[in-house]
Amino acid sequence: MQPTTGATITGRIICAGLGPGDPDLMSVRADRVIRAARHVAFFRKAGRPGQARRIVEGMLAAGATEYPMEYPVTTELPFDSPEYIRLLAEFYDDWAARLQALVQAGADVVVLCEGDPFFYGSFMHLYTRLKDHVPIDVIPAIPGMVGCWNATGQPITWGDDVLTVLMGTLPEGDLVRHMKAADALAIMKTGRNLPRVRRALAEAGRLQDAWLIERGTMPGQRIVRLAEVDAADCPYFAIVLVHGQGRRPEMGGPE
Amino acid sequence: MQPTTGATITGRIICAGLGPGDPDLMSVRADRVIRAARHVAFFRKAGRPGQARRIVEGMLAAGATEYPMEYPVTTELPFDSPEYIRLLAEFYDDWAARLQALVQAGADVVVLCEGDPFFYGSFMHLYTRLKDHVPIDVIPAIPGMVGCWNATGQPITWGDDVLTVLMGTLPEGDLVRHMKAADALAIMKTGRNLPRVRRALAEAGRLQDAWLIERGTMPGQRIVRLAEVDAADCPYFAIVLVHGQGRRPEMGGPE
Repeated sequence: MQPTTGATITGRIICAGLGPGDPDLMSVRADRVIRAARHVAFFRKAGRPGQARRIVEGMLAAGATEYPMEYPVTTELPFDSPEYIRLLAEFYDDWAARLQALVQAGADVVVLCEGDPFFYGSFMHLYTRLKDHVPIDVIPAIPGMVGCWNATGQPITWGDDVLTVLMGTLPEGDLVRHMKAADALAIMKTGRNLPRVRRALAEAGRLQDAWLIERGTMPGQRIVRLAEVDAADCPYFAIVLVHGQGRRPEMGGPE
Repeated sequence: MQPTTGATITGRIICAGLGPGDPDLMSVRADRVIRAARHVAFFRKAGRPGQARRIVEGMLAAGATEYPMEYPVTTELPFDSPEYIRLLAEFYDDWAARLQALVQAGADVVVLCEGDPFFYGSFMHLYTRLKDHVPIDVIPAIPGMVGCWNATGQPITWGDDVLTVLMGTLPEGDLVRHMKAADALAIMKTGRNLPRVRRALAEAGRLQDAWLIERGTMPGQRIVRLAEVDAADCPYFAIVLVHGQGRRPEMGGPE
């Protein structure tokens, strides 16, 4: 597992997907890797404990070195402004260089990632910068939306249902079009976009079937019908789900 | 955790999602529950070891009782024929009654389920029959498609990408329409439907970007460009993926 670069023995980056939030739902492999880690990096907003770090509370070994990678900006600038994009690119460049230096000095560095790292994960910004320079392992995990639909206690899809995953940041017309076309829906990045998501669901005729799941699988979990949520409510870590009803219902069985 | 029904203490059904195939990728909770189980039920084709049972090989406790739930028919009848639907309904009725009797006699019964139980899982046919009669816990898991996109070594989605999940059993026109509308695609139930899936991808202009992942995360894993697969090839446990390219690319950061 220790590849050589020329004659130098290096370490590796191991990105551990943490799953939806309940530490008992991370994979056996991620659990083992995190408990054994000597170097642990994770993203967070400046001045906050960070959701990824919170999930592994009590799991890190004594003496593990922590590397909080604090976002330089959050909501102060529009996310598509040139200034925001430049600041974030520098931030990722800087951390990619720091982690690369650690690995090339022989360390294994575990990078914590909420949900599944390859499903809308921030890790990809490090991954694209590092993958041609150091060995990287990625440990998949249960995406947040899977934990959320489990929390609702009913299947999200069955039979030939079509599931579409949407970001709440999409233009309202795009949201409506996709909401009309799919059987089941998972809508992420809600937060400040929730009013638009709600209007689009109403326009697509799906609002009455929509559920809001806040802090899915975590302490403080809340599951409510979106139509009954106060319009001023701005939930955290929230996903909107519409369950499929089983397109062309078949009775199951092997393929 | 032992609820009472009247004065009688009953057990419960625990459906353990197994994830994509590698036992190291099941959740810490599923791993613990499966190793402690005294009663273990799982679906399989008659005369086959069964994929779910294979994943837990070496994990079951000595003396655990196994309940292979063998499908009465597989490919001998059209899956939408009345006879097939009737046979399968009887099969699920029968096993629901048997598991209910076990639970009401005080046993905890662990039902194994490949992938995530609430994402196109056969378990829902037992769940709908049992949920009003006995306590049921469902342990979520990494869906098969997540293991597959991880195996490709690149993010399936980033930025505002739209992901759509499709069954290969859908009519070709529906496949084409959804393939054109989404950025990223996961297509399941391929097998005998692979020629149709391939034609639809070509029609939607996505065939050159499509990957076929066979036995993802399992021994014998194969990852190939779909366009390069022999048309006569009929792969097992295969999923087709098209990666998103990052719609309206943003540089990441918190919401």
